[in-house]
Amino acid sequence: MFPSLRYTAVMRTTADLRRTVSRLRKDFEGRLAELVDIPSVSVEPERKADVLRCADMAAGFLRDVGGTVQIAPTKGYPMVVGKLGADPSLPTVSIYNHLDVQPADPSEWKTSPFKFSRKGERYFGRGTTDDKGPALAALLGARLAIQDGAPINIQFLWENEEEIGSPNFEQGLSVLARGKKGKKGMKGFATDSVAVSDTIWISKDRPALPVGLRGLCGLTVKLSTGAKDVHSGTTGGAARNPLTELAALVADCVEARTGKIKIPGFYDDVKPLSVREQKSIAQAGFSRRTFMAAHELTSVRFSKDADLCRAIMARPTFEVHGLTGGYRGPGIKTIVPARGELKLSMRLVPDQDPRTIFAKVRAFILKRIPDAVVEAEGLMQPYLGDLDGRELQAAARAVTETFGRPPAMVREGGSIGAVLTMRKLLRAPVVLMGLSLPEHGYHAPNENFDWTQASGGIEMFYRYFWDLARAGAQR
Amino acid sequence: MFPSLRYTAVMRTTADLRRTVSRLRKDFEGRLAELVDIPSVSVEPERKADVLRCADMAAGFLRDVGGTVQIAPTKGYPMVVGKLGADPSLPTVSIYNHLDVQPADPSEWKTSPFKFSRKGERYFGRGTTDDKGPALAALLGARLAIQDGAPINIQFLWENEEEIGSPNFEQGLSVLARGKKGKKGMKGFATDSVAVSDTIWISKDRPALPVGLRGLCGLTVKLSTGAKDVHSGTTGGAARNPLTELAALVADCVEARTGKIKIPGFYDDVKPLSVREQKSIAQAGFSRRTFMAAHELTSVRFSKDADLCRAIMARPTFEVHGLTGGYRGPGIKTIVPARGELKLSMRLVPDQDPRTIFAKVRAFILKRIPDAVVEAEGLMQPYLGDLDGRELQAAARAVTETFGRPPAMVREGGSIGAVLTMRKLLRAPVVLMGLSLPEHGYHAPNENFDWTQASGGIEMFYRYFWDLARAGAQR
Repeated sequence: MFPSLRYTAVMRTTADLRRTVSRLRKDFEGRLAELVDIPSVSVEPERKADVLRCADMAAGFLRDVGGTVQIAPTKGYPMVVGKLGADPSLPTVSIYNHLDVQPADPSEWKTSPFKFSRKGERYFGRGTTDDKGPALAALLGARLAIQDGAPINIQFLWENEEEIGSPNFEQGLSVLARGKKGKKGMKGFATDSVAVSDTIWISKDRPALPVGLRGLCGLTVKLSTGAKDVHSGTTGGAARNPLTELAALVADCVEARTGKIKIPGFYDDVKPLSVREQKSIAQAGFSRRTFMAAHELTSVRFSKDADLCRAIMARPTFEVHGLTGGYRGPGIKTIVPARGELKLSMRLVPDQDPRTIFAKVRAFILKRIPDAVVEAEGLMQPYLGDLDGRELQAAARAVTETFGRPPAMVREGGSIGAVLTMRKLLRAPVVLMGLSLPEHGYHAPNENFDWTQASGGIEMFYRYFWDLARAGAQR
Repeated sequence: MFPSLRYTAVMRTTADLRRTVSRLRKDFEGRLAELVDIPSVSVEPERKADVLRCADMAAGFLRDVGGTVQIAPTKGYPMVVGKLGADPSLPTVSIYNHLDVQPADPSEWKTSPFKFSRKGERYFGRGTTDDKGPALAALLGARLAIQDGAPINIQFLWENEEEIGSPNFEQGLSVLARGKKGKKGMKGFATDSVAVSDTIWISKDRPALPVGLRGLCGLTVKLSTGAKDVHSGTTGGAARNPLTELAALVADCVEARTGKIKIPGFYDDVKPLSVREQKSIAQAGFSRRTFMAAHELTSVRFSKDADLCRAIMARPTFEVHGLTGGYRGPGIKTIVPARGELKLSMRLVPDQDPRTIFAKVRAFILKRIPDAVVEAEGLMQPYLGDLDGRELQAAARAVTETFGRPPAMVREGGSIGAVLTMRKLLRAPVVLMGLSLPEHGYHAPNENFDWTQASGGIEMFYRYFWDLARAGAQR
């Protein structure tokens, strides 16, 4: 091998690149269909075999493109690790995606959630946009860059527990990063930088490179006051009503219409936006109307664009996801329910710490309902990256050249637990190069992805890898 | 026919009566099994055929005992009307029961809810105690009284919409009471008094003859803020959360731990208990421990017997029966739900009017959530009978002689919409001669009845009919 030869390799011209990418459509769609047809729902224990099958299939895809592959164990679902190139003289970039998906209720979908379907250039199915489609776009972009001789090592890290808050990612990655000797030269997992493709643009005309993510503090609150539902005539007034008490608890925690959280000390560690971030967010082109249309919302909390945008990007939340217990059929059933379970989560912003928040919220709840059972359900740190980072600038160039518009450097409202873990354990900067659009329906029924974003993604990653490769050569 | 002959007929002695009743056990159990095996759930439209089949079977039972039977139409499910005797010179007593039952979730039951099962002298199945068992006890008591020549006409009025708040009972009864000419001398429905057997004792050692019932104002509150559940990362903070808003609404309406209702004017028309009622309730022997054990409650709102008893018998309630919408699976799912439906009802006490209360509550809700949709689900007047009524005194004698203890003259926490309607349309006093025990599980899983209460019921009704007959002869 003559590495010097590779340094003479050159990137394709834009016209050639786009022609080549357009020829990858069938390959992309075929692989996406295979992945989407597997219901890799990590939150549902009965889907275990599917999650593992999906990981195996993805490992096969990595092998197909010439990668060295490892199914890296964790205490939960394993990670799929793949390496294209391992030349120590070249820079190494790692791409993080996840293969597990959210649950789906078929009754809410127009097509079967776990059967890939195509309508024109749009792809429907759970996982199409979150995150199987972006994973494949990065993979095909990487294959093309390597085929064209880009002097860079490209690694893949595909998690299978992202949708349950990455409970074993840190443990799994620390084992991997320590570098137990494996087969085929799989020795550890060192990288110069990480790109994560699991975020969402402002709108289809406005790409985004988020520099921040919200954290998460999820919890359940269970309350039981009897062995069975009882009659509201014979016991009503005397029996405690768990649903009423849990509802009152919600009202004590949050102002329903504004979302303002009333738990003492909750905002203590919220770091104000820098002037530069404020400006960047203000210029992002967030529009209430576009946002409402994309998410099919008929009504939102604020009337001003700026208030809505700030509420998503820069403020913590307190959301009720569900309240179980009692009667759910038609009309009413005059019972006093025996139990209820409140399903909650808070999105956190820098520098809130999920463990500190959980402790505060738990204490607040138990002070009000001492016999409630409060359990954490996924804790994730919020994240704030470096606006001046070299990789972020390279990513911005790749986005601008591919999509014809500079990206908005904003914060993302969602949480990706793996991001902070990777920055910490791999000691590498992380950039968030998402391809999803608001109308793709992250976590929603009728989740979808499209070829415009997929082909743009392949091109964007190709350009990004070349950019990093050239920067590596200049070091 | 020589009516005078009948006046010479005499009641059986206690020993003879009890021996005779004990021989009716197989007959009782067989008929109860036939009724319970039909899932006559009036709230579930798909059970329509079952409700009608149950009515037909009950009509057959009335014919079996020699009754003249009519399936009396209403705008909803018909009523089953039966008459044993129609001698205008004799007093007439009518017995009201209902044949429809509450829904049942088989997963909460130890036996199949719609398959009668016997364990020793206890009978399990939906409707065993509410109200098919008491209906049959009254029927067999009536058959025996008539066989023995009791000079009285006994009529049966079996409703099929009690569990949905008797929405068509007034309309149906007013047609019946007007007396359209039917076959077999079915001309109208006049009566001197009504006995309703659909109430619950204080405990198994403490019979009750309630003189009051709570009314009901049921409602649903629906709120929709979007077309689909959305991601709490990408939209959280900006999107309205219907579950959070409905929870806050509950907290605005009621103090969760005490049950005190905060809606202005809610208590305006609550009539204080008379001194006599207070005394009667205080002597009823209500025990917190017995109450909690009977309903399998691990925790209740008040620690004093008197506070608990008053909360059930004499105070209105505000209960959450369920809150639909959002996620109900294991753990959490980080969505902002698109919609929620709050299922509520208030039990009302004399002299609260359900229509007035509904208007007040609806206005209170819409002031807070103008885009909520509020719908009434069953409105029932509260009821207060006459402590000095002749029939109540006769019922008290029958109870005392049968069960060896005088009944507690209390108020019942439940609601029976038909009671006020019958008092009004039939211009007749109503007595509440229930046979159910707290541990029978009204509206609860594993609903049951037992032979002690059933055989006691047959005897009690037999004695009651004879008492009224003798009183009629003395008039």
